[in-house]
Amino acid sequence: MIPPMVSASTFPAGSVGSVETQYLDLPEPVRLDCGQALHPVRVAYETYGTLSPARDNVILVCHALSGDAHAAGFAKTPAQTSTRDGFGAADRDGAAGSGLGWWDGMIGPGKAFDTDRYFVVATNLLGGCSGTTGPSSIDPATGRPYGSDFPVITVADMVRTERAFLDVLGVERLAAVAGGSLGGMQALQWAILFPDQVDAIVAIASTHALHPQGVAWNAIARNAIMGDPAWQGGHYYGTDRAPHAGMGVARMVGHVTYLSAPALNDRFGRRLQFADDIRHTITEPEFEVESYLRHQADSFVKRFDANTYLFTSRALTYFDLARQHGGGSLARALEPVSARTLLIAFSSDWLYPPSASREIEDALRALGKPVEFQVIDAPYGHDCFLLEEARQTPIIRRFLAER
Amino acid sequence: MIPPMVSASTFPAGSVGSVETQYLDLPEPVRLDCGQALHPVRVAYETYGTLSPARDNVILVCHALSGDAHAAGFAKTPAQTSTRDGFGAADRDGAAGSGLGWWDGMIGPGKAFDTDRYFVVATNLLGGCSGTTGPSSIDPATGRPYGSDFPVITVADMVRTERAFLDVLGVERLAAVAGGSLGGMQALQWAILFPDQVDAIVAIASTHALHPQGVAWNAIARNAIMGDPAWQGGHYYGTDRAPHAGMGVARMVGHVTYLSAPALNDRFGRRLQFADDIRHTITEPEFEVESYLRHQADSFVKRFDANTYLFTSRALTYFDLARQHGGGSLARALEPVSARTLLIAFSSDWLYPPSASREIEDALRALGKPVEFQVIDAPYGHDCFLLEEARQTPIIRRFLAER
Repeated sequence: MIPPMVSASTFPAGSVGSVETQYLDLPEPVRLDCGQALHPVRVAYETYGTLSPARDNVILVCHALSGDAHAAGFAKTPAQTSTRDGFGAADRDGAAGSGLGWWDGMIGPGKAFDTDRYFVVATNLLGGCSGTTGPSSIDPATGRPYGSDFPVITVADMVRTERAFLDVLGVERLAAVAGGSLGGMQALQWAILFPDQVDAIVAIASTHALHPQGVAWNAIARNAIMGDPAWQGGHYYGTDRAPHAGMGVARMVGHVTYLSAPALNDRFGRRLQFADDIRHTITEPEFEVESYLRHQADSFVKRFDANTYLFTSRALTYFDLARQHGGGSLARALEPVSARTLLIAFSSDWLYPPSASREIEDALRALGKPVEFQVIDAPYGHDCFLLEEARQTPIIRRFLAER
Repeated sequence: MIPPMVSASTFPAGSVGSVETQYLDLPEPVRLDCGQALHPVRVAYETYGTLSPARDNVILVCHALSGDAHAAGFAKTPAQTSTRDGFGAADRDGAAGSGLGWWDGMIGPGKAFDTDRYFVVATNLLGGCSGTTGPSSIDPATGRPYGSDFPVITVADMVRTERAFLDVLGVERLAAVAGGSLGGMQALQWAILFPDQVDAIVAIASTHALHPQGVAWNAIARNAIMGDPAWQGGHYYGTDRAPHAGMGVARMVGHVTYLSAPALNDRFGRRLQFADDIRHTITEPEFEVESYLRHQADSFVKRFDANTYLFTSRALTYFDLARQHGGGSLARALEPVSARTLLIAFSSDWLYPPSASREIEDALRALGKPVEFQVIDAPYGHDCFLLEEARQTPIIRRFLAER
């Protein structure tokens, strides 16, 4: 039974309304950095707005580690109801039970990525677990899910997949590629791999190469997952077990790194869960912050695939523009870039600190390329890219209008 | 066969020489904050220097989460060879294969805690796994190790145990109590519980209450251990399994929080382990920092008990002087203190930041109590308390001499 079309008037102003993720199979194998070619590759995607006759108004939005193709609007299917689980964002989602896209505050009529003007495309990245081919997909060589036999992919592989997907859609040029965190890495990678096909990039709370502490956090998360016996060497699909304990720990580490210490203090302090005294327990959460982390872990493991976490985490630690494209020099790596570049960072983001964006800005400026860098003074750490929509919006709208 | 006595002349200048941990059984049960009384309680300890006839030269040194009673000198037994596994300290220990005590740079003739003048006593804390009664000890009620049935202890319980131990030793007053991190918490707790028996305290890289992010890191570490099926509800002793995977992850989290991001960058950068390119692997360490963390985890799980980690971590998150003793007010909690107080913090320590020590200083000063606070500008984060011996030494020597 086809559900009735929901009229746009039932949605709040600025909403793209009800949306459904679509799927597209790429006609050719995707050539990967590791030397393999992956086939078949399916891409999950959503679009918002209308493609112009000249096909010159396309903005590709790229998601971060735990995102999916449902970037804006209200999901028709319940499977898409939990993508907004950042700090604060989780509350809004929980309160509304709305199935809102993860960047709904940024995409829609009159928003930062204005669907009255642009045709916004969001895909689930290569290796994902929300419709695009990834470790949980069937390996045609065996007839069983790839599991840990999935090829070890890179950010460049994700971008090549997005390029192939847009080819099928008949989109040659992009007005912009935008994303936060790992999404921003994809935007930067686009500007280097396909300089003639990208007019502008917007890289938010991102970096040209994760710093060693960030590499360490990701290694810990992956070790937590792979150290869980239920991971079973990566072949847990179809068994009655999955590495939920390890994934939960990985997610907890992630959450703390996405937030700032002052934000945790403002929100939770040292408040106890029960009355005003301790209960002398090692197994039960005692502080509110402990309970919050467990809740975040429990809800995450229900919706996300552990192997996708592993492969995506590995890709973002590998990402290093200077090593990949510049023989160690960031400036040399950025030489091909012709896109106008907007960088946004947040003062309290210690996982993707403003200093990394500053290095990109300096290198682009030294090369005489158009670049704008804005640091937003905000307290919520890395999660700001999902939360500080009101302050990012005018910056992005003006930048896009300048083209 | 009794090993030959090693002559002091074979040790470097300033060393207390060869030492052996001793053990003492307390005659009475220890009354705990949770309401239980623990008996029997054995305490592992070492002493350095000579007790004065007036018994007025005793300094109690308290260790941090992963320490033991072997604070100084060269251990006679191989079981004590790996207590110095901090950043940098690990190298020195590894290079020397020496069995050096964890604070050897601070304790000895002419050192910060000068054994020519003081009788320095170090114990393994209550709940420990290096000789003092803890979760791996036999529960007299069952004849089997306590495991997770060990009572949930507090820092105050640790201090009461130290008090009872010193009673047996015939030591009533302490010239000083000193320690870093959890050791500093014990020093502060001593000054509040036994104000008439402590002349001075030295609390280094410590706090009156861990901030919420620190609570979160500890919760993650405990979840990693308890989520490991090999933990078996805390009763893994005598089985052929122990929660090494979970403990490894816990230790990795600890290591990253003990260090600063700039220190990790200086030491490891983004250097790859093999040649100058990636190998496309999710299971093997690829960056030097990843390999370092695995090595630290592997060596830690061989020497440390997971349940001790759980109970000690819980105690240090519970520690909150304002809640315990001041009805929410730190100033009221510190009212009983009569000891002179020296606080030392390190500029790059984000786990026990200088701001926490500053709050203690302000509260003591407002109460008109003698307090000195020194912030040492050093890059290695929380681990500085184990590493910056040369810069702590003159501060501590002068402070102790002023009594």
